[in-house]
Amino acid sequence: MKAIHYLLSVLLLAGNALLAQDSSHQTQIRDIYDTALTSGKSYAWLEHLSNQIGGRLSGSLEAERAVSWGEEELKALALDAVRLQSVMVPKWVRGNFEYANIETSPGNTINVPICALGGSIATPSVGIRAQVVEVQNFEDLNALGREKVAGKIVFYNRPMDAKLINTFQAYSGAVNQRSRGATMAAKLGAVGVIVRSMNLRLDDYPHTGAMNYGDLPLRQRIPAAAISTNGAELLSSMLKLNPNLQFFFKQNCKNYPDVPSHNVIGELKGSEQPEKIIVVGGHLDSWDLGDGAHDDGAGIVQSMEVLRIFKAMGYQPKHTIRVVLFMNEENGMRGGKAYAAAAKKNNEQHVFALESDAGGFTPRGFSFDCSPAQFQQILSWKKYFEPYQIFEFSQGGSGADIGPLKDGKVVLSGLRPDSQRYFDHHHAATDTFEAINKRELELGAAAMTSLVYLVDQLGF
Amino acid sequence: MKAIHYLLSVLLLAGNALLAQDSSHQTQIRDIYDTALTSGKSYAWLEHLSNQIGGRLSGSLEAERAVSWGEEELKALALDAVRLQSVMVPKWVRGNFEYANIETSPGNTINVPICALGGSIATPSVGIRAQVVEVQNFEDLNALGREKVAGKIVFYNRPMDAKLINTFQAYSGAVNQRSRGATMAAKLGAVGVIVRSMNLRLDDYPHTGAMNYGDLPLRQRIPAAAISTNGAELLSSMLKLNPNLQFFFKQNCKNYPDVPSHNVIGELKGSEQPEKIIVVGGHLDSWDLGDGAHDDGAGIVQSMEVLRIFKAMGYQPKHTIRVVLFMNEENGMRGGKAYAAAAKKNNEQHVFALESDAGGFTPRGFSFDCSPAQFQQILSWKKYFEPYQIFEFSQGGSGADIGPLKDGKVVLSGLRPDSQRYFDHHHAATDTFEAINKRELELGAAAMTSLVYLVDQLGF
Repeated sequence: MKAIHYLLSVLLLAGNALLAQDSSHQTQIRDIYDTALTSGKSYAWLEHLSNQIGGRLSGSLEAERAVSWGEEELKALALDAVRLQSVMVPKWVRGNFEYANIETSPGNTINVPICALGGSIATPSVGIRAQVVEVQNFEDLNALGREKVAGKIVFYNRPMDAKLINTFQAYSGAVNQRSRGATMAAKLGAVGVIVRSMNLRLDDYPHTGAMNYGDLPLRQRIPAAAISTNGAELLSSMLKLNPNLQFFFKQNCKNYPDVPSHNVIGELKGSEQPEKIIVVGGHLDSWDLGDGAHDDGAGIVQSMEVLRIFKAMGYQPKHTIRVVLFMNEENGMRGGKAYAAAAKKNNEQHVFALESDAGGFTPRGFSFDCSPAQFQQILSWKKYFEPYQIFEFSQGGSGADIGPLKDGKVVLSGLRPDSQRYFDHHHAATDTFEAINKRELELGAAAMTSLVYLVDQLGF
Repeated sequence: MKAIHYLLSVLLLAGNALLAQDSSHQTQIRDIYDTALTSGKSYAWLEHLSNQIGGRLSGSLEAERAVSWGEEELKALALDAVRLQSVMVPKWVRGNFEYANIETSPGNTINVPICALGGSIATPSVGIRAQVVEVQNFEDLNALGREKVAGKIVFYNRPMDAKLINTFQAYSGAVNQRSRGATMAAKLGAVGVIVRSMNLRLDDYPHTGAMNYGDLPLRQRIPAAAISTNGAELLSSMLKLNPNLQFFFKQNCKNYPDVPSHNVIGELKGSEQPEKIIVVGGHLDSWDLGDGAHDDGAGIVQSMEVLRIFKAMGYQPKHTIRVVLFMNEENGMRGGKAYAAAAKKNNEQHVFALESDAGGFTPRGFSFDCSPAQFQQILSWKKYFEPYQIFEFSQGGSGADIGPLKDGKVVLSGLRPDSQRYFDHHHAATDTFEAINKRELELGAAAMTSLVYLVDQLGF
């Protein structure tokens, strides 16, 4: 009987200790949210990055200004270390004109908004004028064959699927037209490609993004541009009326040799296990049409905010916590690859990496690339997030920049904000600071900080 | 043995039947979403209501136009019945000037954006110039007492609490300054009140909204206006520098006698239990500063869309499904009260009422005002919504217009969209169609239609 009493007492004490620990984590997370929502710095940082620096494509002056700014701001946080990590990046420059029209009848034209795709070659200086073949996918294209494609402009017009609730799935289902469309069309003798913008909305903004020619010989390469969704609808209608209409476009973008740039890295040294590293990051480069506020200025300032909040709260992490502002996610991923290569070379032990690169909208959850056992552990933390309206913990991808860290041990994660508005802005002139809501941005930063806190305290 | 075999077979068949039913509901809900996202009408309807009709305060010409438009559009859906329900509504008119400044030193003034609160009286035609006392709440005010308040303008400056994740809670915690501030201040001899706008963001837009004088005698009433959040911050700073500064404001709004208006009602007759009624609705009136796209144009078109989707799918509801476009939610609730009174008088049996009046943003869930047993039944339907990223089913309020239907039997529910951006727009010039995202609006309509479908099929 005494033994049972003793056992019960022990269990009761253990239970109480667990409850006390739960409650302590709840309190810390409440503090994290209060700090983010009442004295957060992410919004002011993003205002500067978006409006004072602007679009910052790899290899541009703006990208280098962003590197300097990131380094300075991290130094101002009095972290334990701030450094730059060298990396060579591609340099593609849009040039000073992009222009297109539809010739509906001889001498009558309608201008349509286009932009060169990142990595594309220029048109001849007089532009390209040719007939158009409209296709939905590569199967359509190959079915047409060289005979019907040679000498023409291929117009890829498969819309993102509006029925998919997660808009990133709709993006995945459409983006091969942009990334590989030129190569596929060139192989059949096309002279150029026009791609419907990756945008669920009908509007007048062309959306750029990376394309590449793979191993296509230089002389076979053809220029590629995106057309706004309204422009794509118009062109498609016009083609139904007149399949022989002429389309004209010109652009003078250019690829240059690689140039040096940097990842920016700051860290708080772990007090108990400094050799175990937790990374939080986003990408510092952006496309050049907007100011890159959502893609991925938001991820940059949210990641910086994680460390700032810990400092502001006086929280001493057990693990080393590192913020990485990755360079060149958009058109090369050189920063992410260089970071992972250096980590491997230096035998660094990464236990967790979290990326924010899906926009600064209301956070809905996280995605995790990890083992089933690790995911079960993570699911036990859901209760800490429910008061903050975060309910979605899924297994899946994480972020492009942290992907190269994958080694079968490190847990990778991506912040998953509400995705409905993201592709209205993604890679377009509409990706601007005005499209950011301060609270949504701050809630994302708080969610990230809370997850990093839990990993630091409880896992893995 | 045979009996057991038989029993097992029966159970198995029953289990299969349940699974088949589950799967049928899943298919129907998938169809509802596909219809809303690919051929929805809510966005086009809202464009018309917002841009062609505009702000539609009760008693205004625009409100009457909205009634005619609603009636016509519902008739075009070929419902089983469409009718108008008469209701007398208040008529308050903003007038043609609203103006305020801070006199920081003799002869030096800074203009600040204000707007009259709905229901307020005008200032004298020459305006009101007086010293200001700043308070956070009624306790502050009463502590100052008549001696320090008489002859002054009372400036209510308690911000919405940024720490609250649900912004409607933050609104609830601040709105008594707007609704009752004038009455409380008038009782201590104040000459006017200026109220910080109900807005979590710092910007230059004053937000109007209802106030009332309760039973305060006419001659004691004082004018009340809202000041933008930036204006409130400025005034507060200036008062710290010079507590004796003079504030000036004038406005010529006016209350008129009640005028006739209407609720608009459309219905699909139930095929099995036509006497049992399901209501879905929003409010047709709006404030006058913006075009009322979020508050509550969104709720109106989403509610209309529920019936349109059922028609488009050829779905025959078992219960009678009624859409009600309520008049006068903003400053009188006369439409909601009249609808409930008529329902009671006619012995109508309402089983479920759903309101959308929290903006056209991404739907996150529903709130239910019902018994614990009913809520348990509703929770068993959560699985149907999870593929659509809807996770939040809570007990609580529903909507102002359907509130008067409450009788201990009817289940009341409110759509709960993401709330972070709502108060950037609420009751201000920023509540415009441009702030609406088509997909978010459509997802809300699909969620509402799905919930109504499940109630029609399964409960209560």
